[in-house]
Amino acid sequence: MRKIVAGFAISLDGYIEGPQGEYDWIIMDQEFDFTGHLKKFDTFLFGRKSYEKFRRAGNPSFPGITNYVISNSLDSVDKTFILAKGDPKKTIEKIREQKGKDIAVYGGANLLSSLLDLDLIDEIQMTIIPVMLGSGKPMVATLRKRAHLTLIEVKKFGSGAVQLIYQVKHK
Amino acid sequence: MRKIVAGFAISLDGYIEGPQGEYDWIIMDQEFDFTGHLKKFDTFLFGRKSYEKFRRAGNPSFPGITNYVISNSLDSVDKTFILAKGDPKKTIEKIREQKGKDIAVYGGANLLSSLLDLDLIDEIQMTIIPVMLGSGKPMVATLRKRAHLTLIEVKKFGSGAVQLIYQVKHK
Repeated sequence: MRKIVAGFAISLDGYIEGPQGEYDWIIMDQEFDFTGHLKKFDTFLFGRKSYEKFRRAGNPSFPGITNYVISNSLDSVDKTFILAKGDPKKTIEKIREQKGKDIAVYGGANLLSSLLDLDLIDEIQMTIIPVMLGSGKPMVATLRKRAHLTLIEVKKFGSGAVQLIYQVKHK
Repeated sequence: MRKIVAGFAISLDGYIEGPQGEYDWIIMDQEFDFTGHLKKFDTFLFGRKSYEKFRRAGNPSFPGITNYVISNSLDSVDKTFILAKGDPKKTIEKIREQKGKDIAVYGGANLLSSLLDLDLIDEIQMTIIPVMLGSGKPMVATLRKRAHLTLIEVKKFGSGAVQLIYQVKHK
């Protein structure tokens, strides 16, 4: 079955964005094979906030990627995105049943928390950047239940970043 | 010179305590040499909150350790502690000038943030427990300035915990 993977960079003190939405502290390590990483996926899931931020930043959509926006509050999305309304569990399970590569969750916080609570996340790929911000946007919003994980891999980069890969223990 | 070291366990999503102060999720790894670790220190620094929590929990003080409470709001402390009032920077620099082993900061959040802002922390030893709590007490309270770190060591434990050791870059 296609895996649903949440990947992000995080500060040592647990933030995915600074207090004003800053991400200038995220240093892309030259050793990190971003192209190879992207090849594993053909589908991205956005929450409303990540979608709006992605659009505002004028980011182009990635070639060969189908982008879903999981939102019940939006009425339409740009033509390079597909709006998925309705029960998120059913919607995402339907996407997962289609043939394809793995599915990546873009952004963190609200969508990630909902998907963890719905037990829809299979893997977490977290890159810890050696900086402490003191405040900002946490990786997940409040969870209804703790999520337990199994450590799969630890990668050390020359920049001092550390990537930790975990499997989520299904409930 | 004696190092000032902050060590703690943290959830994957950046909390040192659960929302109700829970720490039942912190699993002490059998491979972790706690006794060997303690031997490096002869001085502990407590903030007011950590001191009060430590006392309420009825924890005995560790043998051979001098315990300071860094607080300007308390008037007295238990006889196994020394109350350090006044300018925390001067107080801690005075303690550091005395001969001895390394100094550990007990607990996180408020005291740790103040000491980071005062550029008094030399090393961070953080053990990431493979669980996400969703909310709780963050590692540090708001910082006036970002703290940058150099990765020193990565240790993987059988339980899935990962210890990361960083040197703090002095400002």
